[in-house]
Amino acid sequence: MGGVVVEDSSTTNENCLSCSNGTTITTPLNLDVGDPLLFEPYWKKMGDKCRVVIEGNDFMSYGFDPKSVCSFIHPELKDAIKRIHCLVGNAVIDDKYIVVGTGSTQLFQASWFALSPSDSSNPINVISAAPYYSAYPDAAGFLRSGIYHWGGDAKLYDKDEPYIEIVTSPNNPDGTIRGPVVRSKSEGKLVHDFAYYWPQYTPITHKADHDVMLFTFSKCTGHAGSRIGWAIVKDIEVAKKMTHFLYLSSVGASKESQIRAAKILGVLCDSYQNLGSQPFFEYGKCLMRERWEKLREVFEKSNVFTLAKYPKAYCKFTNETSETYPGRGASRTKQSVT
Amino acid sequence: MGGVVVEDSSTTNENCLSCSNGTTITTPLNLDVGDPLLFEPYWKKMGDKCRVVIEGNDFMSYGFDPKSVCSFIHPELKDAIKRIHCLVGNAVIDDKYIVVGTGSTQLFQASWFALSPSDSSNPINVISAAPYYSAYPDAAGFLRSGIYHWGGDAKLYDKDEPYIEIVTSPNNPDGTIRGPVVRSKSEGKLVHDFAYYWPQYTPITHKADHDVMLFTFSKCTGHAGSRIGWAIVKDIEVAKKMTHFLYLSSVGASKESQIRAAKILGVLCDSYQNLGSQPFFEYGKCLMRERWEKLREVFEKSNVFTLAKYPKAYCKFTNETSETYPGRGASRTKQSVT
Repeated sequence: MGGVVVEDSSTTNENCLSCSNGTTITTPLNLDVGDPLLFEPYWKKMGDKCRVVIEGNDFMSYGFDPKSVCSFIHPELKDAIKRIHCLVGNAVIDDKYIVVGTGSTQLFQASWFALSPSDSSNPINVISAAPYYSAYPDAAGFLRSGIYHWGGDAKLYDKDEPYIEIVTSPNNPDGTIRGPVVRSKSEGKLVHDFAYYWPQYTPITHKADHDVMLFTFSKCTGHAGSRIGWAIVKDIEVAKKMTHFLYLSSVGASKESQIRAAKILGVLCDSYQNLGSQPFFEYGKCLMRERWEKLREVFEKSNVFTLAKYPKAYCKFTNETSETYPGRGASRTKQSVT
Repeated sequence: MGGVVVEDSSTTNENCLSCSNGTTITTPLNLDVGDPLLFEPYWKKMGDKCRVVIEGNDFMSYGFDPKSVCSFIHPELKDAIKRIHCLVGNAVIDDKYIVVGTGSTQLFQASWFALSPSDSSNPINVISAAPYYSAYPDAAGFLRSGIYHWGGDAKLYDKDEPYIEIVTSPNNPDGTIRGPVVRSKSEGKLVHDFAYYWPQYTPITHKADHDVMLFTFSKCTGHAGSRIGWAIVKDIEVAKKMTHFLYLSSVGASKESQIRAAKILGVLCDSYQNLGSQPFFEYGKCLMRERWEKLREVFEKSNVFTLAKYPKAYCKFTNETSETYPGRGASRTKQSVT
C-alpha cells in the first residue's frame, strides 16, 4: 500500500500523473512530501482582506505572558483558534489550554515529552497503527532520547510497558477514520493528531474531546510555510510541560506567523458571515472532490492500481452526507508490478 | 558571579533597579531572561522603510528548494545575511553554507546533532567554559539524548572522550571575549556562538572564520519575537546534517519571519548608504554605552556590588577604540550579602 499525493504540485511539475494506453504511470508519484498549494487561488482571490502589514517595531518581544500557560501564544491567535473550532464544531475547546508550536511536527514531540513518565529509567514507547505518518518514527528516534522512542505498529503492541498511542484521524497516509487500537493492561496515553479533521477533507461527525488534540495551520488553510500548529490540551500540567519543551527547543514560535495565522483564520470564519464571500471549506471540499474524481477516473482505467474507497458519513458542518477526500490517499496493487 | 540584565524592560516594569541610600538593590534583577526591546524606538523611527506586507497567498509552500543545502531558507534572507556580514566584517561567509533555524536555540541543538559521531554508542560531551549561558545545559539534557549530553565546565574538562566545546564570544552572561579553552588529546569540535558579536556590543576586531558560527536576529537587531537564527557552516555535510535536524524537529523555520528578517537586515545595511538615516549600530552602541554608564554609576555608589570592567579594543567597523557593552554583564560582590 502506498500513499498518493493529491496535493497540488503545479509550481514544481513534479508528481505529474501521466498515462498512456490508460494504464501506465510514467512519472513516479512523490509519496513522501506534498505541498498544499491547492488552496492558493482562494487566498489570492480574497485580496486585501487577508493582507497582513508588519511594522519595523512590531512583535520584537519574546512574548512571555506570565498569565498564559503557553507564554508564547499571541492573544489574537488564541482567539482565532477558539473561533474556528466553534464555527466548525470539530473539537471541544472550552476550559482547555491552547499551546502553539512551530508546526504540529514540533508539537507532537512536545506531547510525547509531556506525557512520558518523569521517573522512568526507560523510554516510553510511541506507537501508531500502520500505515502511519512517515515522520513519526524518525521524530521519535533521531535524538535517541531516553524519554521516548519509537515502538512500532500499535496494532501489534503487546509489551507490558507504558505507551503513547498516536491516533491520526483522518489518517495520514491512507485517509481512514480511526480510534485507538491498543487494548492493553499497561498504562497508555493518547495523542490525537487531527491535522486532517477539517470539512474539506472529511465529514465533521462530532466535536472531538480528548486529552491532547493536535491541529495544524498547514492542513486547515494550506499555509504550510508559516509553520504554525496548535494543541488543545485538557490538563494544565501537560500544557505546561509541552510549553517547557517548546521553550527549550526554540523559545516558542514566530510571532509574525502567529499574527498571520490569526488573520487568515479570521478571514476564513468571516467567509461564513459575509454573503459576498465564497465560504472556504465549501471551496476546499469542491476542489478535493474534483481532484479525487479525476484521480479515480485514471485509476479505474489502470490494470495495476485501484484507489481505496472511503465510507460516507453525515457532516454536521456542511449538513450533507459525503465521503472523506484525504490530503493523501491509498492505492492498492491489482497485479504484481515488476 | 551573577548576570545583570541591562536589556530594556520598560514595558513590564520588572527588573527595576531601585536604590535607597545609594547602596541597596530593593528589587531583584531578573538574571535569567531579558527582552531586547532596547532598539524598538530605532525601528519605529524608520517608519515605512521597514514595513512588510504579506498577502493571503504568499509563502504557502513548505519551501523546499532542492538546489539549496538548507532547503527552507528564503533566498532573500540568504542574500541579506551575506550583505550584513560583508558590511560589518564580523564573519567570513564566502564559500560557506547558511542554515536558518527557529532562533539560535534550535540551531545550537542542530549543531550538536550534526557534529556528534554517528557511530558512537555513548553521547558526546557538550561543554562550555563557566559562566555559560544557562540554556545550554537544559537544551543538551532535556531529552536525555543518546547522541549528546551536557558535560559541564570546559575549563575542567579532562575526560578521554570526544567533546563539542561551545565558545560564546562576547560571552553570555559575563561579556568576556573568548576562545576555546580545552587542551585535550581527545577529539574536540567547536561551535562558535556569536550572538553578541555585533558592533553595538563589542569592537569588531576580526572576521571570524570557524567551522560552525551561530548568529541570531534577536541580538543583532532586537527582533526576538521572530525566532530567526542562522548558522554559517564550512563543511557541506555538517550543513546537511543540521538541516536534517531542523526538518525532523519543525520542518524548518517560519517564512513570514524569514522575509521580515530579510527586510530589517536590508534596512539596517541601507542605513549606511543613505546619508539621511541614522546608522543602526552607532545608535545601538550609543544606547548600550549610555545604559552601562548609568549602571556603573549606580554600582559605584554601592557597598555591595561592583561591575566587571572590560578591556578596550580597536573596532574595524566603527574605526574607534572602545570597550565591550554586553547585553548582559557581570557583577561581583564587595562584601557578603545575607
